[in-house]
This record gives sequence, C-alpha cells and structure tokens, in this order.
Amino acid sequence: MAHITSSSRGVFVIAVTPFLETGALDHDSIDRMVDFYAEKGADGLTILGMMGEAPKLTQAESIEVTRRTLARAGNMPVVVGVSAPGLAALGELTGAVMDLGAAGVMVAPPSSLRTDEQIIGYYRNVVETVGKDVPVVLQDFPLSTGVQISTKTLRVIFEAHPSIVMLKHEDWPGLQKISDLRQAETEGSRRVSILCGNAGAFLPEEMRRGADGAMTGFAYPEMMANVVRLSNEGRHEAAQDVFDAYLPLVRYEQQPGIGLAVRKYVLAKRGAIGSAAQRRPGAGLNAAAIAEIEMLIARQTRRLETLA
Amino acid sequence: MAHITSSSRGVFVIAVTPFLETGALDHDSIDRMVDFYAEKGADGLTILGMMGEAPKLTQAESIEVTRRTLARAGNMPVVVGVSAPGLAALGELTGAVMDLGAAGVMVAPPSSLRTDEQIIGYYRNVVETVGKDVPVVLQDFPLSTGVQISTKTLRVIFEAHPSIVMLKHEDWPGLQKISDLRQAETEGSRRVSILCGNAGAFLPEEMRRGADGAMTGFAYPEMMANVVRLSNEGRHEAAQDVFDAYLPLVRYEQQPGIGLAVRKYVLAKRGAIGSAAQRRPGAGLNAAAIAEIEMLIARQTRRLETLA
Amino acid sequence: MAHITSSSRGVFVIAVTPFLETGALDHDSIDRMVDFYAEKGADGLTILGMMGEAPKLTQAESIEVTRRTLARAGNMPVVVGVSAPGLAALGELTGAVMDLGAAGVMVAPPSSLRTDEQIIGYYRNVVETVGKDVPVVLQDFPLSTGVQISTKTLRVIFEAHPSIVMLKHEDWPGLQKISDLRQAETEGSRRVSILCGNAGAFLPEEMRRGADGAMTGFAYPEMMANVVRLSNEGRHEAAQDVFDAYLPLVRYEQQPGIGLAVRKYVLAKRGAIGSAAQRRPGAGLNAAAIAEIEMLIARQTRRLETLA
Amino acid sequence: MAHITSSSRGVFVIAVTPFLETGALDHDSIDRMVDFYAEKGADGLTILGMMGEAPKLTQAESIEVTRRTLARAGNMPVVVGVSAPGLAALGELTGAVMDLGAAGVMVAPPSSLRTDEQIIGYYRNVVETVGKDVPVVLQDFPLSTGVQISTKTLRVIFEAHPSIVMLKHEDWPGLQKISDLRQAETEGSRRVSILCGNAGAFLPEEMRRGADGAMTGFAYPEMMANVVRLSNEGRHEAAQDVFDAYLPLVRYEQQPGIGLAVRKYVLAKRGAIGSAAQRRPGAGLNAAAIAEIEMLIARQTRRLETLA
Repeated sequence: MAHITSSSRGVFVIAVTPFLETGALDHDSIDRMVDFYAEKGADGLTILGMMGEAPKLTQAESIEVTRRTLARAGNMPVVVGVSAPGLAALGELTGAVMDLGAAGVMVAPPSSLRTDEQIIGYYRNVVETVGKDVPVVLQDFPLSTGVQISTKTLRVIFEAHPSIVMLKHEDWPGLQKISDLRQAETEGSRRVSILCGNAGAFLPEEMRRGADGAMTGFAYPEMMANVVRLSNEGRHEAAQDVFDAYLPLVRYEQQPGIGLAVRKYVLAKRGAIGSAAQRRPGAGLNAAAIAEIEMLIARQTRRLETLA
Repeated sequence: MAHITSSSRGVFVIAVTPFLETGALDHDSIDRMVDFYAEKGADGLTILGMMGEAPKLTQAESIEVTRRTLARAGNMPVVVGVSAPGLAALGELTGAVMDLGAAGVMVAPPSSLRTDEQIIGYYRNVVETVGKDVPVVLQDFPLSTGVQISTKTLRVIFEAHPSIVMLKHEDWPGLQKISDLRQAETEGSRRVSILCGNAGAFLPEEMRRGADGAMTGFAYPEMMANVVRLSNEGRHEAAQDVFDAYLPLVRYEQQPGIGLAVRKYVLAKRGAIGSAAQRRPGAGLNAAAIAEIEMLIARQTRRLETLA
Repeated sequence: MAHITSSSRGVFVIAVTPFLETGALDHDSIDRMVDFYAEKGADGLTILGMMGEAPKLTQAESIEVTRRTLARAGNMPVVVGVSAPGLAALGELTGAVMDLGAAGVMVAPPSSLRTDEQIIGYYRNVVETVGKDVPVVLQDFPLSTGVQISTKTLRVIFEAHPSIVMLKHEDWPGLQKISDLRQAETEGSRRVSILCGNAGAFLPEEMRRGADGAMTGFAYPEMMANVVRLSNEGRHEAAQDVFDAYLPLVRYEQQPGIGLAVRKYVLAKRGAIGSAAQRRPGAGLNAAAIAEIEMLIARQTRRLETLA
Repeated sequence: MAHITSSSRGVFVIAVTPFLETGALDHDSIDRMVDFYAEKGADGLTILGMMGEAPKLTQAESIEVTRRTLARAGNMPVVVGVSAPGLAALGELTGAVMDLGAAGVMVAPPSSLRTDEQIIGYYRNVVETVGKDVPVVLQDFPLSTGVQISTKTLRVIFEAHPSIVMLKHEDWPGLQKISDLRQAETEGSRRVSILCGNAGAFLPEEMRRGADGAMTGFAYPEMMANVVRLSNEGRHEAAQDVFDAYLPLVRYEQQPGIGLAVRKYVLAKRGAIGSAAQRRPGAGLNAAAIAEIEMLIARQTRRLETLA
C-alpha cells in the first residue's frame, strides 16, 4: 500500500477499536467501520491512537486489528499509532505493522520530555529505531502528553528527519503554529503535511491557515470531509456553515475521557460498529448524557436540513 | 453590600482588568465595563480572577481595582479572586477587599496539591485564615491548576465549612459532577450554589443538570444571561438556540492564553473598555486572528437575527 | 517457586538488565548477576523494574529475561515488574511470568492518576486483571510516577485486596508513612510487607520505623543485607556505621537518570555483569564522573576497613 | 552595600525566617541568626527563598525581614528571593529591597514554563521589569519548580542579560551542567558565578567541577564553609572527610517538606533562633523524628572529633 508523504491531504479518520460487550475484539465491526468511514468521505485511517484504546490491547491484538483493518481498507492508507514507553516496543510494533502494509506510523512524545533538546533527541532515536524508510507522523498533543513543542523545535526535527512527513496537529491554541510553519516553508523550510486533530473543533480556521486536512475521529466524518472540500474550493462561509451545524456535538464529543464513550455511542447508533462497549477502564454514559446527545443529534439533523 | 450565599444565582461575569496602552490601569474603563456588564444582564461580577490578569497587579493596584469596581457596581455583588501562593497574602487581601465591601472571595487550590487529604487540609487552612464569616467560592479548574477534586472531596469540604457557599465549576468534563452534587443534596448534603465557568461552553447542559448560573467572562454576557433565563423558564430548546448562535465565538475565545486577547478585543470593539491592551506578558492578536474573529462576529450577528 | 507474602522480609535486590556493547541481551551476565546478588546477601530479586530498563525490552525479551533469571535463581523468589500503560499488556505479562515461576508482580500507578478514588480504582482493576491468586507489590514512588498515595489510601487498597501483599516503599519523605502503617496494624489493619527503595538512602531509619527490609538496587547489596541484619538484631549504631560507610556512594548512585549508569559501572567493575552498557536512550559516564566514582569507592573501602 | 557580581564566591546561607510560637515574626531571632551564620563562616545570606517560608509572609513582613536582616548583616551581602506569580509583584518587591540595600535578587521560573523559548522569554521580562542595574540570581531548581533548563538555554539567557550574574545551581543531577558551563566559558561564553544548593549534598564534587561555592541552608553552615575552603586549597580528600561527617544529617535535612522542620529544629537547638516554629501550613516533628535527628547529631559530633 502507498505510504503517506509530505504531500498527503484530506481526512484521516482516527478509528475507534470495536469491542463486543464481553470485551473481546469485534472483528466484524472492524470491517463495518472501515466501510463506514470510507463511505463518509475518509481519505485514510489512523488506528491504535489514544482514542483507539490502544493501551488496552495486547500486542497480538494490536497486530490483529492492524491486519484486519488493512485487509478491508484496500487502497485507503492506514497510519498506525505506535507510541510506547520504550523504543524497543515501538520499533517492534512498527516493523510488524509496516510489514502488514501500513502507510506510516504515528508517534507522540513520552510525557517525561521537557527541554527542546530532549524532544529533538527523542525523535532522533525514534527515526533511528524505525528506520529512515518508514514514514512517521509526529503527534503534537500537549493537552494529553504534557509536552510542549515549539514551532522552532518542530522545524529542527523536520529538517533533520525527512522521513517525518506529517504533523498531527493538536496543540491548543494551535492556529498560529500552522501559520508559522507554512511561513517557514516560504523561507526554504521543508514542507510537511499538516493534518489537524482536536475533534475538528477548529477545522475551518485550520484550513484557512494552511492545513492539509484533518486527522481526528468525530463520529460524523462527513463534517470533516465537507469542511475540507469546501475550504479547498475557497468556499469558506459554506465550510463554516457545515461546521457550525456540527459544532455543538463536536464540543460535546471533545470532552476528555467521556468523549470516547460519546463517540462510540454515536458510531453504534449510526451502525458503524456493533456496540459502544469499551474495554475496562472506560467511562460509560448514563441516561442524562444520552439524553443530551440525542437532543444534540436531533438539533444537528434539523440544522443540516436548512443547509441542504 | 450583600454577601453571596449558597442560594446565589444568575450570571456573575468574570471581569477583565482594563489597561491603557501604556500598561497603566485604566480607571475610567473600569466604570464603563461595570456599566456594560450590568446592561448586558450580569447579576454579579468576579474580579481579579485568572482571566483578570490579577498576578500582573501589585497589591496596591489590586485594592484599587476592587475599590473602583465596588464603587460603581452599586448593589451588584462583587466576588474577588484572592488566590495566592501563601495564606498570609491571601488573608491580607481578603481582609482588605471584604472591608471595602466585597460579596465574597474566590480561592483556587495551589497546583502542588495532590491527595484528597491535602486538598481538604488546604481549604481548612483557607477558612481559618479568612475567618468563618467571609463567604468563599471554591474554584475547581483542573485544566489550569492541575488539581483534580473529586465530588466526594468537594462534599467533605462543603460539609466541613458552611462559609464555602459556592462552587465555581469548571472541571472538564464536569456535567456529571453537577448531577452528583445535586443528587447528594437530595440525600441530606448541604446545598451550595454552583456557577459554571469554561467560557460558558456547556452552559445549556449545566443548567439542565442543576447549576444555578454562570461565572465566566465571555465577551457577550447577554448569551449567559439569556441561556440562564430561558433555562430557568424550562425553555431548553430556545436556550440552546441562543447558545448555538454564540458557540463558534465561545470556542474561539476559550483558547488558552490567547483567549484573553480575544475577549479584550471584542470588549474594546463593543465599547466596554477603552483598549484591548494587556500587561506584559500577554499575547496580542495578529491580522489573521482578527480576521477570524471578525468573521465569527459577522456570522453570529446574522444568526442572532434569525432568532429574533 | 514460593510466592511472596505479607510476611516476606529481607533484601530483594532490584536487578539491572545486562546488555552487550551491541545492545543485545547479555544472557550469560544474567546468570553471573544472579549469583553475585545471592552471594552478597540477597533474599530475593526484583526484575524488569524502572531501573531494569524494562521499557527498553520487547515483550519477548522481557519473558526471556524472566525465564533466565528464574532458572538461575533457584529457590530465591523473583518479583517481576509488570507496570504498563494498559491493563491488557499488564495482564498478559503477569500471566506469562507467573507461569514461569515468578514469586509475584510489581505494579506502579500510571502517572495520570490524581484523586484517591482514581488510585483505589486502578488497583481494583489491576487485581481483577491479574487474578486474586497473584501476589502483587504496590510500588509507591511519587518522585518518578508523580502519583501521591496517602497512608489512608494505601490502607483502603490493602484492606480491599488481600493479594496485594507488599509495599515497595519509596515515597520521599516516607519515614512517617511506615510508622503510620505499622500503627494502623496495631489497630486492626491487615499487615503488609514493607520493603524500602530509594537506593537505601534511609534504610537504618526505615528499619527502626518497622520496615521488613529493602527492595532497591545499590551496587553493594551487602550494605542492605548488613543494615537489615544488624537492625533486626537491634544493633542500630552498628547498622548506621555500615550505612554511613556506603552513604557517599549511595548518594551518588541515587542521582536520577545517570544513577543507572553509575550502578552498572560499579557492577561491571565488581564482575557482576560483563558490561556497563545501557540500551538507548541511556546516559553514559564521562571521565569526570568515573573519577568521582573511583574516589568514592576508594574512600568507601578504607572506611569499611576501619569497621572490620 | 556591595552588589553580587559574576565573580562572587563562597557560602551564601539560605536563611530561615524565625517565628515565635504564636506565628508572629521573631525580630530578635533575625539578629541572632545573622550573627550565627556569620560566625559559622557565611560570606553572604539569601533570604525569602523557598525554604525561608517567603510565601507565608505578607508583603509588609517581607520588607521588614529584609530591612532587619540588612541592618544586622553589615558588610555581608544579602540576596533576596523575589519570585512571584506575576511580574508586577516581583518588580515591586525588587525595587523595595534594592532600595534597602540588598545585594541582588533571586528569581525562580514559574512552574508553567515548558519550552526553551518560554524560559528565555521569562527572564527577558524579568530583567526588563527589575532593570538592568539589579543583579539577578537565576534559580535552577527543577525538582521544586518542574521547569527544566538546559545548559544551552542557560547560556542563551546569560549571554543576553549581563545583569544575571549568578546561577543558583540545584538541578539534580547537576554535576555535568557545571562542567558544561565552565567549558563554555573557555570557549568565550560570559562567566557567571555558580553557587550550589541541594542542601550541599554534592558540594565536594560541585567544587571540583568548577562551582564558586554554596548557596544553601544546611543547619551547620561550617560544613559548607570548610568544604569550600578546603576545595579551594586543593585539599579534596580533606574536604570530602568533612563532608562525609555531615552527610547523614544533610541527607535527613534534605527531605522535601519536613526538611525545613529539621533545619529549624537544629538551628533552635544550636541557639541560632529562638524557636523551631513554622507558620501554617508547616510540618512539625514527632518524637520518632527527633530521636533520629538526635542520634545523627551525636554520631556527627563523634565523627568530627576524629577529624580534629
């Protein structure tokens, strides 16, 4: 399968990992989910990310999820999250998933890193571990990792390692970081693909700042697909109209922790997966939360009708 | 002036601190701002909070801001943020502002606290320091303080200290915390007033969960006033309609750090303060950010017209 | 092999993981090291801990290190560190090492935990995952994990889970925690074994406070063995004499990060392992550091001669 | 009084703040303590540091402690800690204490700083706030502040701001940082004075690496004075002999939190201050701790006699 490159664009949906109510992997739902994401406009997938409950899987299960997803995804590129406490596990999983046909791997910095030098050194070790022929996505998500990476540090890392082809951008605030990176490219810096996370909560602005698309897992991937498409067509008010219709639910799904339960509830409701079950430990939804979600979905549906 | 109580309700606007371009306090703008907040529906004010640039003020300036605000606020209760690294400074400022007529003080936990016992012990020290006759607002804002306070710990603190009359609720996610506290009250726990922060980003749901109002600083206080009023009238779809119209800008203003620049820009544009200037260190807005804000305001205006 | 119990006592040495200069596992040195530790007075071993470079091993290597260590250790109980980002990996490794004959597993809390409830909930999940028949060591090491566990929380966890038989104590300061736990036992709380870490830097005081021994990896295990023995004999001044002779090097080896390089340097020098090599990323020693260590060893040798 | 410079050397004792049992400032003990420190070999003092309970003082009390200390210190230079959450308070206190005759001010970074750029920017703001004529000590204490400052970042800051004349060095591990800074000076970097903290726990090695002395508060300042003097004379084994005699107590006093209680207990016992009382919140010593300290002091006394 084709690798991701510094020119990759569009919507890479952060996939959930489907489980049965028993907690076992739901293999059939992997197929259904891949089809669903493709139908709703995904250009690629990212699996085994933080929102994919990756740490709850054994290594064998991680490989199996990758194998099954790749088999179903066909030509759609699949990035695999391989963040791990140590380089050995990271390298081992990378080797396995690239052999299976992954399009690249995604690596977040361990939360112990602080200084610019430590961050730069970490990605040097990562590239040496996985090999220079493996495309790497650098995940910049300070809210979750606690690691703040300045634009300057990102530029040093990108210059040093051509195999780091993509930034998963989810700094918050992060709009100026996109502008600064794109500005640097006009001054000779290497281009990288920038796909944005944060549940898509700033996607219209991110596209106008120069992002190449989205890499996030909102349960309505068509929102991201439409916002990216309209933005690329220069139809920014229309992009914002679509975005605004979904924003109340985006906001609700973006809540840390419980957000994954919301996402799985909606995906199950939409038929993308068989069950909203999470592996332990995972927060469920009570009646009050479900009522809130249903109200938001009903309103979203009505609002989208006015846009049609 | 009347003190806040465990029955206080409505919208307490988190006030900014107005500065001249020179960095000096803008005393005239304090008056103008107080009037503006009152006109837009504020039931009370909270000054010298994190978003009020309190740490950038000298102690004398803090007193002066309090004095001027109170003089203009008339019967509108004013809560004063007194969080400090040590109890001595906290107690000294509390004494000064209560003498001036403040309605209560707000205290966030220092970021060094970790265990439940440490948090409970801290608020015991606070109450002993300020005295049991001073109404205290407990600010629960883990995203900023790093301190996570469980519902159970909040209940222990509230039971122990009747003078802690209000929770400034800005845990994220935090909806269930409201439900749990209200449920506990049906089982005999002491009632506290719950006013919600987080830029109002979950205000409709918070009101339905049992909150008494908002304590936050979004630059359109009429949003909070209307959402709170409609919610209290049981008109939840209408409340959500109002909320949705403002949400794109709420989201933009809620960005950490730069959010205050956004808020001051809008307040200055609306005539509430003379200048958007922040004291150093404070992020400014560049042309790209201003264009984004202006687009959001224009869209918000159009959307509100459809609701009228 | 016998399992650890709440009555386990003595010195469990935190073993390093020996590598060749190439970075490959040094299987022969595992044997040599096990023999060395036994000769120097170890009552048990703990492998795959933080100082054992566990995150740098693949899962297969972790199993292999366990297998080889167990084969050589004979009747000496071996605890295996199984801390992992997720319960699935933790459970999988636990099953594997217990099948191989481990005496128990050690689990540190993930650094995301904050409130008492979260910590209590985590160990409930751990016990459910590994099964109630697997002896668990709770590692309380706030300096490294960032998680502070109060004595009260420890007691709740110990009462709830009889299979958590041991506390690896390395809070700092931590002396009063030992006294408080022992005091609680006189009031009816369940007894747990308390073995102390922190490179042994407070071992004489810890023994007097009621600890059962040490679980740490100082490169002179005979220090721990002698201090524990003399303390148990009530010869506290003699215990402190031994301790004081080693303290300058204990202090030097206790430096975060570089401490492991110091430990491996000394172990290699003493013939316990073939090489001081660490897997990447691992800090090496420069000439200045080596000169400091050699000076400390020379002085330690002279000092011990005066005690003989 | 003379200002500190980049050539300052010797022992600057971190002074405690003496309180009466009532919690009031003990003015008389300030005089006694200053005399005690001078008699025991202090070349200077540092007041209102983290171990000086500075956050427990009101602003007026901070000024009063400074005034009284300066009046008694005579020609001995006194550095004043002015770290504060905001620049306004920092600047205000700096102005006041420099007017009173302080030799310089010490500033630790706020714990919110992460990237190199943020740290560099912070000290630029500090220098602009206090003015370029005020000598500044940069306190590098990651264990307490959570801020890691690389050698490279320190060099950028020192080059940019000639008024930052001194590094209070208490990184841990930190020996190589001294070597690297001194090496950089041989390559043309500006020299700064390096005085070391961490309770003196690495003072012999720090002196050999190129430190200019100590800035810490161990209750036996004569230890630091003698180690510094002997080191400067090249008598490194003798310096280490002195150090080793005190190390068991240094270690005990270095415990976070409770360490200050230990220090004040010993200082009161030695007659340097009237009471070991701390202001709330402050940990006291129970009988077990006192017994441990007394045993350590008795052993220390015997050991020192063998050196005489």
